[in-house]
Amino acid sequence: LSKPTAAQQAAELVTRLLGGDRAALARVITHLERDGAGAREIDTLLAPHVGRAYTVGVTGAPGAGKSTIVGSLLAAALAQNQRTAVLALDPVSPLTHGAILGDRLRMEHITADERVFVRSMTADAHGGGLSVVTPLAIRALDAAGWPWIFVETVGVGQSEIDIVEAAATTVVVLNPGWGDEVQSIKAGLMEVADIFVINKCDRDGAAETRRDLERLIAQAPPSAWKPPIVDTIANQGSGVDALWQAINDHRGFQEQSQLLPGRRDRFLRLALRSLAQQSLNARIERFGASARFKDLLGKVTRGEDSIHSAADKLLKQLLKD
Amino acid sequence: LSKPTAAQQAAELVTRLLGGDRAALARVITHLERDGAGAREIDTLLAPHVGRAYTVGVTGAPGAGKSTIVGSLLAAALAQNQRTAVLALDPVSPLTHGAILGDRLRMEHITADERVFVRSMTADAHGGGLSVVTPLAIRALDAAGWPWIFVETVGVGQSEIDIVEAAATTVVVLNPGWGDEVQSIKAGLMEVADIFVINKCDRDGAAETRRDLERLIAQAPPSAWKPPIVDTIANQGSGVDALWQAINDHRGFQEQSQLLPGRRDRFLRLALRSLAQQSLNARIERFGASARFKDLLGKVTRGEDSIHSAADKLLKQLLKD
Repeated sequence: LSKPTAAQQAAELVTRLLGGDRAALARVITHLERDGAGAREIDTLLAPHVGRAYTVGVTGAPGAGKSTIVGSLLAAALAQNQRTAVLALDPVSPLTHGAILGDRLRMEHITADERVFVRSMTADAHGGGLSVVTPLAIRALDAAGWPWIFVETVGVGQSEIDIVEAAATTVVVLNPGWGDEVQSIKAGLMEVADIFVINKCDRDGAAETRRDLERLIAQAPPSAWKPPIVDTIANQGSGVDALWQAINDHRGFQEQSQLLPGRRDRFLRLALRSLAQQSLNARIERFGASARFKDLLGKVTRGEDSIHSAADKLLKQLLKD
Repeated sequence: LSKPTAAQQAAELVTRLLGGDRAALARVITHLERDGAGAREIDTLLAPHVGRAYTVGVTGAPGAGKSTIVGSLLAAALAQNQRTAVLALDPVSPLTHGAILGDRLRMEHITADERVFVRSMTADAHGGGLSVVTPLAIRALDAAGWPWIFVETVGVGQSEIDIVEAAATTVVVLNPGWGDEVQSIKAGLMEVADIFVINKCDRDGAAETRRDLERLIAQAPPSAWKPPIVDTIANQGSGVDALWQAINDHRGFQEQSQLLPGRRDRFLRLALRSLAQQSLNARIERFGASARFKDLLGKVTRGEDSIHSAADKLLKQLLKD
């Protein structure tokens, strides 16, 4: 008997995934992460089966309590017998793996439940980064029939902001006393938030943080949806039902206002743009090792060429290859 | 009299910049930020005059004390009559402007000195982001004859890490008690640090943070340069001389080991790659508004095409235009 080809293995895995096999789903996501043989075939086979899931992005700084909130939301969804999947993204290097996993152990007591699927992914798993793998993994969860998908990520860079923005509902988690955080690192997220959470709302500064947020919301361009601010103490379960309600309200609002096709387009745009950029970056990397690129660098170093002109030549070369 | 062309204005500005005119330098950087008429000519005119400056990148989380440290380093450099320029980068949205500037007022008492040049830049100033503008601004400062250039940025995303990594010496600033930070958000920076600073070292947890760092350094691949850890209380000036010494030690080490040409190549690679990517992204954005792109999205939405195959078509189209 000959060994099955990558395409045959992919077909078998996807058949099992579509039949509800959790192990097959996990293996499919691993294939997508590694971008190995079969990743392309897998997405082709999944394509006719996607389009039913509702995606919720949850983001905020490290330590804000994102994992605890997602864990509590899982419980709230289960109380209504809603099956829910979680993608926990770790946009940092291999060194960090332990710490992040430790943080996520809190979710584990719940993951024995058949109605829950939890998966962590790291950026280093893949040359293209999480903005390439995440949309593909969401499509796999969608095709596997998971109606709710929570995507949890640290909101540190533009690509992470892109990822949560591609969700149908985006939740931004803050803590009291984060006036400076609200003003600085989180500003990009302010612009994409559908719902704000002030977690650990029993701590000093909660009122000021709420006031800061209200001012930012008031300054935003007028819109039919005004982001609510939900107070939570997630590790005591306090406020989580209100948050689950706010998520469902936002979903209902978007369904009524016919906004979901636009959100889906935004998600696909992100996925397409990320894959195309990945492919272009691969060309730049390949060319970067060439003698012609060293020539280009040498000319710039000796002041014989400008950066702009050298970049033009680089691009021309890339597009020719 | 006819109005001078952009090229004529650029030539006049660059002549003044090369003659030591600070206002001309500031205007040149503004031109580069806006990528307006003349930006390309400016870099061409600067090209023969660059290659003498030494660039130090300073990064860390918001609130770590980067601005205070850079301000103190300026004072240490001045005490040795070293002329020094600072580029303070703000990789966030326009909303944040006030807060970051407030943080940087501390530097202002020193900026009346002729031997100092301080400039802030924001990411939103330019479609291509700071990874495009920063190398161009560094080249302008270099050509203007500034022998030391400090680049200060919040180490939040990959592009910010790229920027500080392109410096000849990279300083990573941490605070005591940041065990979790060391493990998570800063891990990418661990790999690029030439010097670590534990600022506010009189606070609880300094010893643990040092131990965490020492363990990370010990785990790193063996190298001729072992990153030192410098304790500072920057707002009291404590430890800053030791940090200035460590920077000079690292510079001396790299000069002796002939490592600076490699660093310069890395800097130019970043600059070229960023400019080329910016140009490619502009093509993607343009195409994203086209009817053909909507067709592509529609096929994926209806499950008639996979993401990979649609991305291939997108790329083919981009390279044809």
